[in-house]
Amino acid sequence: MNIKITGSGSHIPGTIEKNKDFNQHTFLNTDGSAITNENEVIIEKFKAITGIDERRYAKDNLTSSDLGFFAAEKAIINANIDKETLDYIIVAHNFGDVKHNTIQSDILPCLASRIKHNLRIKNPKCVAYDILFGCPGWIEGVIQAQAFIKAGIAKKCLVIGSETLSRVVDKYDRDSMIYSDGAGAAIVELTEDTGGILAHETASFTYDEAYYLFFGKSNNQTLDNDTRYIKMDGRKIYEFALTNVPKAMKTCLEKAGVSINDVKKILIHQANEKMDEAIVKRFYKLFKMQMPENIMPMIIDKLGNSSVATVPTLYDLIRNNKLEHHSFSKGDIILFASVGAGMHINAVVYQY
Amino acid sequence: MNIKITGSGSHIPGTIEKNKDFNQHTFLNTDGSAITNENEVIIEKFKAITGIDERRYAKDNLTSSDLGFFAAEKAIINANIDKETLDYIIVAHNFGDVKHNTIQSDILPCLASRIKHNLRIKNPKCVAYDILFGCPGWIEGVIQAQAFIKAGIAKKCLVIGSETLSRVVDKYDRDSMIYSDGAGAAIVELTEDTGGILAHETASFTYDEAYYLFFGKSNNQTLDNDTRYIKMDGRKIYEFALTNVPKAMKTCLEKAGVSINDVKKILIHQANEKMDEAIVKRFYKLFKMQMPENIMPMIIDKLGNSSVATVPTLYDLIRNNKLEHHSFSKGDIILFASVGAGMHINAVVYQY
Repeated sequence: MNIKITGSGSHIPGTIEKNKDFNQHTFLNTDGSAITNENEVIIEKFKAITGIDERRYAKDNLTSSDLGFFAAEKAIINANIDKETLDYIIVAHNFGDVKHNTIQSDILPCLASRIKHNLRIKNPKCVAYDILFGCPGWIEGVIQAQAFIKAGIAKKCLVIGSETLSRVVDKYDRDSMIYSDGAGAAIVELTEDTGGILAHETASFTYDEAYYLFFGKSNNQTLDNDTRYIKMDGRKIYEFALTNVPKAMKTCLEKAGVSINDVKKILIHQANEKMDEAIVKRFYKLFKMQMPENIMPMIIDKLGNSSVATVPTLYDLIRNNKLEHHSFSKGDIILFASVGAGMHINAVVYQY
Repeated sequence: MNIKITGSGSHIPGTIEKNKDFNQHTFLNTDGSAITNENEVIIEKFKAITGIDERRYAKDNLTSSDLGFFAAEKAIINANIDKETLDYIIVAHNFGDVKHNTIQSDILPCLASRIKHNLRIKNPKCVAYDILFGCPGWIEGVIQAQAFIKAGIAKKCLVIGSETLSRVVDKYDRDSMIYSDGAGAAIVELTEDTGGILAHETASFTYDEAYYLFFGKSNNQTLDNDTRYIKMDGRKIYEFALTNVPKAMKTCLEKAGVSINDVKKILIHQANEKMDEAIVKRFYKLFKMQMPENIMPMIIDKLGNSSVATVPTLYDLIRNNKLEHHSFSKGDIILFASVGAGMHINAVVYQY
């Protein structure tokens, strides 16, 4: 019995927000004080660290569940399945549907119900629920789908990651330039084919780390004190990720019994290019190796950090030959990894 | 291999809101028009249908994750387990943490991370995530815990349902009197004991039903148009529940291979006393039987509808001998059932 991704889809929103579009923003420090650098300098430094040139924003009339629906439709077509045969629809997100120019998260009903409704699936036995698990939510959804299949209560699951971070950014915060919108989806199926999910590893670090990413006040202290935005302690996250993500990736690889030399691609959550490079370099260092060329496909330059949407979008672009210099071949070992709010970390070793 | 609840806990908030506390409210129809009846008459009719005398509200300084933490602490003590041996913390809710007098749901980080943080659990292998699945979220969390145990990736899970509906009510809506706050929790474990979860059934009806419960505008049309509240189409929900919940309960019982005559208690989500009675009567009618006396313990009169918290609270009160005229004995068959936003329905046949 193997469990494989038999189809994928992604939705990359049409609105491109370039770095220069932030030129006129008033960036403030956390304490509300002015940042002495010119915006051009701030943006240049931002670009050097994160690798982000531009990011995508959803159209004003769309919400996260709409983007998730677009990605889900494509995944169903790509897998060539009858949508009525789905046993589960699992939707990972972090803020629900936040309408343009509003501040409330709408999660009633859950986004999975909305997406199933929009997919016009009739079968009530297809269970539709949401998982909240920070940026690693989509990978965790895949792990849960695998558990349901192993437990004998599912054969075919649709796992979606969808997010509109543009709706929860504090425009007075430099970190607002990181965040992006998007959605990715995959069909996870019981199959007689070879390969599939070989191992997984998940960890939740909450003792000291629970609030490294949080919902907090604007840097502009003259604004309404009750309105909250996505906030992060970037320095702590960087150190945390560098210490713990390579270890989790190594544990996962060992569980799978796969040699480091057989890893063909590492699909890692794209939050910050420098951080991702440092993580993967340290991962190889644990095996006393140098990081190979072309092992880690990056899309952050054009797509920013779209949270739960990033890994499935990256996978979909490569699977469907839409990312230059990267492709999968039958039998390839792919290592998925993510880290994010919670703080949660996960990894999956997958044979294509 | 059996999977049993080895401990439970609940938190019933201290603030009692009685029906007469609504005497001074201005109730309006959905279209904003005045309701011609006096409030005393409205409240009397409300009481006759729902059975609700009073409900509980969380103290102003507490949020949903606080209530969940209180219930979780008790469940861990009740099960007499080492908290560091938990493999999963699963938290069901519908609105996240909504601070008193604010309108934003705070779900970053997820509530499971917050509760794990407050429990001072160090073990990072204890995976902490949230599930959004309407009122049936806690039962669905138990079903997911069961799946993880069956799949061999967990042995011991903490499943929490926590909600502060008082923070999302439209006080101009008569339905605001239904909603309550609370939390319940249970430890779900692999055990060599007899009994435990014998079968489950879950269904998500989204084709026509996805928005029967939704996040909508106030009945007071002079208020800020962007602020949303919990809203429901009570008549449609009533008809939907009466048609589909008894069927799901019957399917679940048949899957378990248990005779209807062996069912000792039905623990059903408490949304409306008349509806619950009608559901259980119709359930017995499917077996050409009358509903037995004392089969359906009710707590709605004193606790209102606290969504995901209701079923685990009810279970905990009976398990720990805090509900008059009801108790469990070893070997008793208990039928859990719930219905709510999504629209989702689930049921579990459990042997005590």
